[in-house]
Amino acid sequence: MKYKYVIVGAGLAGITIAERIATQLHEQVLIIEKRDHIAGNIYDEYNEDGILVQMYGPHTFHTNDKEVFDFVCQYCDWHEYQHRVLSYVNGNFVPMPISLETINQLYNMNLSEDEMDAFIESRKVKIEEIKTSEDVVLSQGGHDIYEKFFKYFTIKQWGVDPSQLDKSVISRIPFRKNRDTRYFTDKYQGNPKGGFTEMCRKMLNHPEIHVLLNTDYKDVIDGIDYDTMVYTGPIDYYFDYKFGRLKYRSIKFIFETHNCESYQPVASTRWPMDYDYTRITEFKKMTGQKNEKTTILKEIPCDGDEPFYTFPTVEWKELAEKYRSEASKEKNVIFLGRLAEYKYYDMDDVIRRALDVFEEIRK
Amino acid sequence: MKYKYVIVGAGLAGITIAERIATQLHEQVLIIEKRDHIAGNIYDEYNEDGILVQMYGPHTFHTNDKEVFDFVCQYCDWHEYQHRVLSYVNGNFVPMPISLETINQLYNMNLSEDEMDAFIESRKVKIEEIKTSEDVVLSQGGHDIYEKFFKYFTIKQWGVDPSQLDKSVISRIPFRKNRDTRYFTDKYQGNPKGGFTEMCRKMLNHPEIHVLLNTDYKDVIDGIDYDTMVYTGPIDYYFDYKFGRLKYRSIKFIFETHNCESYQPVASTRWPMDYDYTRITEFKKMTGQKNEKTTILKEIPCDGDEPFYTFPTVEWKELAEKYRSEASKEKNVIFLGRLAEYKYYDMDDVIRRALDVFEEIRK
Repeated sequence: MKYKYVIVGAGLAGITIAERIATQLHEQVLIIEKRDHIAGNIYDEYNEDGILVQMYGPHTFHTNDKEVFDFVCQYCDWHEYQHRVLSYVNGNFVPMPISLETINQLYNMNLSEDEMDAFIESRKVKIEEIKTSEDVVLSQGGHDIYEKFFKYFTIKQWGVDPSQLDKSVISRIPFRKNRDTRYFTDKYQGNPKGGFTEMCRKMLNHPEIHVLLNTDYKDVIDGIDYDTMVYTGPIDYYFDYKFGRLKYRSIKFIFETHNCESYQPVASTRWPMDYDYTRITEFKKMTGQKNEKTTILKEIPCDGDEPFYTFPTVEWKELAEKYRSEASKEKNVIFLGRLAEYKYYDMDDVIRRALDVFEEIRK
Repeated sequence: MKYKYVIVGAGLAGITIAERIATQLHEQVLIIEKRDHIAGNIYDEYNEDGILVQMYGPHTFHTNDKEVFDFVCQYCDWHEYQHRVLSYVNGNFVPMPISLETINQLYNMNLSEDEMDAFIESRKVKIEEIKTSEDVVLSQGGHDIYEKFFKYFTIKQWGVDPSQLDKSVISRIPFRKNRDTRYFTDKYQGNPKGGFTEMCRKMLNHPEIHVLLNTDYKDVIDGIDYDTMVYTGPIDYYFDYKFGRLKYRSIKFIFETHNCESYQPVASTRWPMDYDYTRITEFKKMTGQKNEKTTILKEIPCDGDEPFYTFPTVEWKELAEKYRSEASKEKNVIFLGRLAEYKYYDMDDVIRRALDVFEEIRK
């Protein structure tokens, strides 16, 4: 088989590049995807109760990048939705990220914006040399904020106490000194009507794009004649793990459908202290769907084979760099996206990156 | 690329064969599908209101073939549902197919089973030589039944008056002399929980099955090294239409979502006389879904490029036979399914046929 371009991986990175190549260069593209569906981790589908759920955890599109926004707007209409998150602390929900509202609700105060600085200042712990993530938070927010929002959450999220984690992992705790309780402050926010999978499907709906599902690219690549590969899979797998395996944090997903219209006050709640999960997502509240039942997702971070989060520590960054350096020597292969670059990307970031890579390709 | 088996078309025929080859022979299979989704005409998806709709018209699974039923049971749980159809005649709904109930409701009578024969007998028209489909119905059911249930319906369905249609098209009108108003009387009836697409996806969920979507097999087949092809696409297309194009009846699908819980008394209504559509399907009534809205589908048969029904007339049967004879000379290619055999198959029939073909293959 002959294709000018082969793309490994049908996630947002691969799909964006495929769309560009097909619509702008009018060249034939083959996408090879290991899973039996497109859309990578933004894959969503309707469950048996007709509720649209995101099978690999919650995603909300948000960007300040007008060009990226215009790009996706070609392929979906929007349910205009601004994400809000509440954190369950000592039996009450308070807004996340930490804002003036959070502090006031947590301590039952009525500080003004001007008074918040002084309050935080009075709580800080003086630490001579900042070495660990624990040091970072204690020195910026003090003991109570550390325990309630960071300590146990970090243990759940990364499986490690912040005192064992390098300071680079939590290098700064975001304090919002105003009353903005939105999770993101980007200009454009929302979820595609019909879902992300439908959006991806429309992006691929082009006669020049062939999509090979359920296929490990290594099983077929020798039989394909191509000029350029865009590789969006795990960078260590590309090199047969020759320097060892990169570490990723995985997630155990627990879906529950409840026989009630509403389960929690907002789409996303964070659980820093209680239970084993870090987050509960109620999908209807993100999509605006109406249904007499509601489906939620509890996420329990864990070790596991399915890669989700890149590990934000020096050890893994160094190994990734070793692979990246190897990758830069590969001819006619472009490494793109979270897994191929071992780098956390938001959706808009990865589209931006794919658009930029495309501009390089077209030159 | 090298595969022992290549299957053209990811409809029920192709998927069944693929499943058998992968699970029983443990051989690698490549399915090549022109559309951007699997499941052929039984493809269903949830629409924006979370209602599961069948995008190419209504399908209900029904069979007396226990082996076929057991086969599909591996891949789905069942919403046990028995299809019922009402025909809208002179402003009232009456049961289809024509049964004792239909006759009693239509003429406001209270005939017993024994009395029905005599009633039908009294209505029949004596026709010396049966030539057309009109003759068939008149001679079996008389003028009123002909007009109310067959004449205009046939014009809508096939675009031709029954008097112009060969007698083979309507060779017999089914009269049910009892009170059974079910559309099918098969022992096993139902719809897969989660839908047909989900069922098909599970059938393909096997590491030996690769699925190439959005791809005309002719664009890639020269680059694939295979031993056997199972071809489930249109037989005339395989031969580049060398004897001319086969005729199919196509359908214009009109989906409507209504802001009410229920639209019509049963899942399927037939419209022999009024409006241009032949049928209205209300999907929730087939799947048992609950939703405060409801989505219906109106079908208007038409000429068109998307093939749905094979044409049941001598002219096209002869042309199909010409192609079939050509097909039988092809080495290492098996022609299977509705389009490849130019033959109307119910779902259970096509699975049965695929299972039988597989037994030939495995020998």
